[in-house]
Amino acid sequence: MAKVIDFQTDPSKYRHWRVEYDGPIANLFMDVDEQGGLFEGYELKLNSYDLGVDIELADLVQRMRFEHPEVKAVVMQSGKDKVFCAGANIRMLGGAEHAHKVNFCKFTNETRNTFEAAGAESGQYYICAVRGSCAGGGYELALACDHIILTDDGSSNVALPEVPLLAVLPGTGGLTRVTDKRMVRRDLADVFCSLEEGVRGKRAKDWRLVDEVVQNSKFEETVQARAREFAAKSDRPSDAKGVELTPLQRSFADNGSITYSTVEVDVDRDKRVARITINGPKEEAPGSVEALHEQGAGSWFLRCARELDDALLHLRLNELETGVLVFCSQGDPEAVMAHEKVVFDNLDNWFAREIALYWKRVLKRLDMTSRSLAALVEPGSCFAGSLAEILFAADRSYMAEGDFEEDNRPVATITLTATNFGPYPMANNLTRLETRFLGEPGKVGEAEQHKDKALEAYDANELGLVTFCFDDIDWDDELRIFLEERASFSPDAMTGMEANLRFPGPETMETRIFGRLTAWQNWIFQRPNAVGKEGALQRYGTGVRGTYDMRRV
Amino acid sequence: MAKVIDFQTDPSKYRHWRVEYDGPIANLFMDVDEQGGLFEGYELKLNSYDLGVDIELADLVQRMRFEHPEVKAVVMQSGKDKVFCAGANIRMLGGAEHAHKVNFCKFTNETRNTFEAAGAESGQYYICAVRGSCAGGGYELALACDHIILTDDGSSNVALPEVPLLAVLPGTGGLTRVTDKRMVRRDLADVFCSLEEGVRGKRAKDWRLVDEVVQNSKFEETVQARAREFAAKSDRPSDAKGVELTPLQRSFADNGSITYSTVEVDVDRDKRVARITINGPKEEAPGSVEALHEQGAGSWFLRCARELDDALLHLRLNELETGVLVFCSQGDPEAVMAHEKVVFDNLDNWFAREIALYWKRVLKRLDMTSRSLAALVEPGSCFAGSLAEILFAADRSYMAEGDFEEDNRPVATITLTATNFGPYPMANNLTRLETRFLGEPGKVGEAEQHKDKALEAYDANELGLVTFCFDDIDWDDELRIFLEERASFSPDAMTGMEANLRFPGPETMETRIFGRLTAWQNWIFQRPNAVGKEGALQRYGTGVRGTYDMRRV
Repeated sequence: MAKVIDFQTDPSKYRHWRVEYDGPIANLFMDVDEQGGLFEGYELKLNSYDLGVDIELADLVQRMRFEHPEVKAVVMQSGKDKVFCAGANIRMLGGAEHAHKVNFCKFTNETRNTFEAAGAESGQYYICAVRGSCAGGGYELALACDHIILTDDGSSNVALPEVPLLAVLPGTGGLTRVTDKRMVRRDLADVFCSLEEGVRGKRAKDWRLVDEVVQNSKFEETVQARAREFAAKSDRPSDAKGVELTPLQRSFADNGSITYSTVEVDVDRDKRVARITINGPKEEAPGSVEALHEQGAGSWFLRCARELDDALLHLRLNELETGVLVFCSQGDPEAVMAHEKVVFDNLDNWFAREIALYWKRVLKRLDMTSRSLAALVEPGSCFAGSLAEILFAADRSYMAEGDFEEDNRPVATITLTATNFGPYPMANNLTRLETRFLGEPGKVGEAEQHKDKALEAYDANELGLVTFCFDDIDWDDELRIFLEERASFSPDAMTGMEANLRFPGPETMETRIFGRLTAWQNWIFQRPNAVGKEGALQRYGTGVRGTYDMRRV
Repeated sequence: MAKVIDFQTDPSKYRHWRVEYDGPIANLFMDVDEQGGLFEGYELKLNSYDLGVDIELADLVQRMRFEHPEVKAVVMQSGKDKVFCAGANIRMLGGAEHAHKVNFCKFTNETRNTFEAAGAESGQYYICAVRGSCAGGGYELALACDHIILTDDGSSNVALPEVPLLAVLPGTGGLTRVTDKRMVRRDLADVFCSLEEGVRGKRAKDWRLVDEVVQNSKFEETVQARAREFAAKSDRPSDAKGVELTPLQRSFADNGSITYSTVEVDVDRDKRVARITINGPKEEAPGSVEALHEQGAGSWFLRCARELDDALLHLRLNELETGVLVFCSQGDPEAVMAHEKVVFDNLDNWFAREIALYWKRVLKRLDMTSRSLAALVEPGSCFAGSLAEILFAADRSYMAEGDFEEDNRPVATITLTATNFGPYPMANNLTRLETRFLGEPGKVGEAEQHKDKALEAYDANELGLVTFCFDDIDWDDELRIFLEERASFSPDAMTGMEANLRFPGPETMETRIFGRLTAWQNWIFQRPNAVGKEGALQRYGTGVRGTYDMRRV
């Protein structure tokens, strides 16, 4: 599976999804092209999916928010007759390498979190209309919706057959959403997750697995009525003009490096390090939200979010040996602040809100990126506000102290803005500064008093905003030693360590999905009972059941 | 490692620990016998430990609570000159099978949780006096104490070198306690956990890794003074008589079955099922707390807890293929209630309190047992109060409905008591009924209204207390089908599923240690970078570093 995976697509290229727009309602049809798999060796039967299907879904969810401000409810449904969705494609999983399985699950989880959040954050609600078999990852799609309606036709069902059938977990949020979102009684959850055939009809409602069970003859009508009810709760505008997400400007070099309009990615494969430089805006900030809207996808702040997002996804899937991501920035901090200000001063505007929420998602994607993250605050950098947030997402940060010889760029500074104190909660529902100062909560307030000021190294260090400060005598050596050492550690140990250290404090469904559920699934994805030659994933479809080592661990 | 592991020991057999009692202070010395390993093939150098060392510690912690009511502060220290403790023995880990590694970590975690809880729950505080190198599992011992004092002698240090040195995690609570108990700033935690040589002196205090750093010349004096300060906060009695934990009465059969005085364990290795029957008390309950004290370790309620605890540990380590534990009870529910009542009516008495807290720990041990847990409420059973709690710890429960033909035992009932509504919180800090009814919190109050009444199947089912009810026509078949099916599933999938379904709702340090941290560690324990022939655990001590697959997952 060494082909390059591209996360950029657009509706003209979709093979698996289509949308029928009907005023405030979007009817979203999953209609997977069996022959449209991302790799060779499997057919996407029964609306089963692979990463390619999910890349389209992620694109679609994103576009629905930006390009269709008028859409207030999305009805997720199947474009096929007898099946809603059979979940992740098993042959694909059986053939995939461990890293691909893990990255596939992470991306699908992020996509589900995105449309799950759309209702509460952005007034775009997802209604799931289940007709036919809705199994495994299919039911996990449903679980991430705001409302699940199941038809009562004697055969349509919901099921999580992974454990009995495949010896793996419903790992795309399935177990967590059953217990913590739908709050199914734990013994009934145990029964449900052990039943290959799933649950249908009234029992599905009684067990809290779906919100409504509706007679088949009234299904369509009820679904659309419910969608209209949800739409009526939305604060999205009915008559605003959408913003088209135009294609990203980017070019790839042979050595893996990428140049975007605002982001540069320098990949050093020998050293296993990628340097990601964000270039601050050179153009003036739009003077009003109308001007921002006019710029649309061309506005620096939105462009930067999209490019950073694409870069992270690209590195995750295509540069597996790049263990350390080093974040740098260059530009004028005041310009960054001006560009984010027009967004955050206008959060009552749907488009400004979408941009802010997108940055929130990109920063979460960064938190969840299982590479060591370091940030360098160098002379000439522009870590202000939203960009400064990257410093607090990083595992550690280095700041240049004072003047650097033969470097005439401005001295390194950090500038905090209001965006560092609220709008970008992590998965644990704390801000990154709150997370950072869990043991010294007073430090958050102290930092807030220094908002909107360019802080040089001494002050940034006193405030606890950076890990280390070095002057130009030590800078290069210290960084070289750190990067060499970090890149030499076992990648697995780093992944486990970072997954634990990055998310202290409270837990949420999100931290549980990426922490506990994912960790157990990854463990199972290493176990011969699931992935061995005689394991369930390999044996699937052969008519012969997996042969298991029966020892409990 | 197929030898039978016995969790019963007593001070006359200790090889690794000793205690000097000094009124309210117990000076506890870790002085591991290099030649005293539980298995062949390694020496326990530098106060490193294996499961055998931890079995002694667990025994000691337990005895300290029951046999030494006068002990109010325990000083954990090293009996060796230059080392505090080097952590888990690496050669032991390198040679151990996966299941042993996982069970070893779980038991050591439970032991640390037990002494960590002793201060807050029972007024027995642990002070850690660190002199010499305190690394890995050594620092994790310290982290579980109430207070850590480090000597400032220029070489004594604390360290978590697992990641750089061994390519595994500090998995015995290390990462979690660094972030969530000591609330070390996450970037400093990242640095600390990447430093083989650890941190010493003032920096250890500044980074919140220890509570005090004390000049070497004043170390002893300060430690004892601090211990006396903690002791002064304790509500334990100074002049009460301890209760000796006399040897358990038990006998093992060749087929793996065990008979205790109150518990029978029938192991069916072919079916991979163990039936654990708790026999209710035949003797009358002690009429007063004095009478309870007189009975001491012979009292039914304490005996039952100790026997159940031993049975669980035995099954976990010695019957790896037994995938399903089926809990039954036989006896008079009223008698069970009378025996628990004298304990719960007298929680201001130190001994009664210790018994209640011990039951709390045993029930937590049950929650954490990675086997499928089923409970059968059969005719003649006595699931009342503390025993009924087992029904809510189980993954599912079956209740016999009405009279069973040719069975003259009393009809099956469940009786809730006050113990089901408070004193036995799970690791998530909710009661098992609160956890069960997370989605319908009103059900807890409803159940409480039916306290102290023997509920037959219809009522128990209406109240949501059991999963299924069957009459005598269906009972045998339904159970047979369930047990056969359950025992046929992949044990790994069951482990992952149960670890997720059992702990919905809030998270605590405990759920994070057993959920997130343990799951990541188990994953790493499967990865070649750690456990492969060229992995770090195998290469340790050879002078050659592990060879790693550098792909990030």
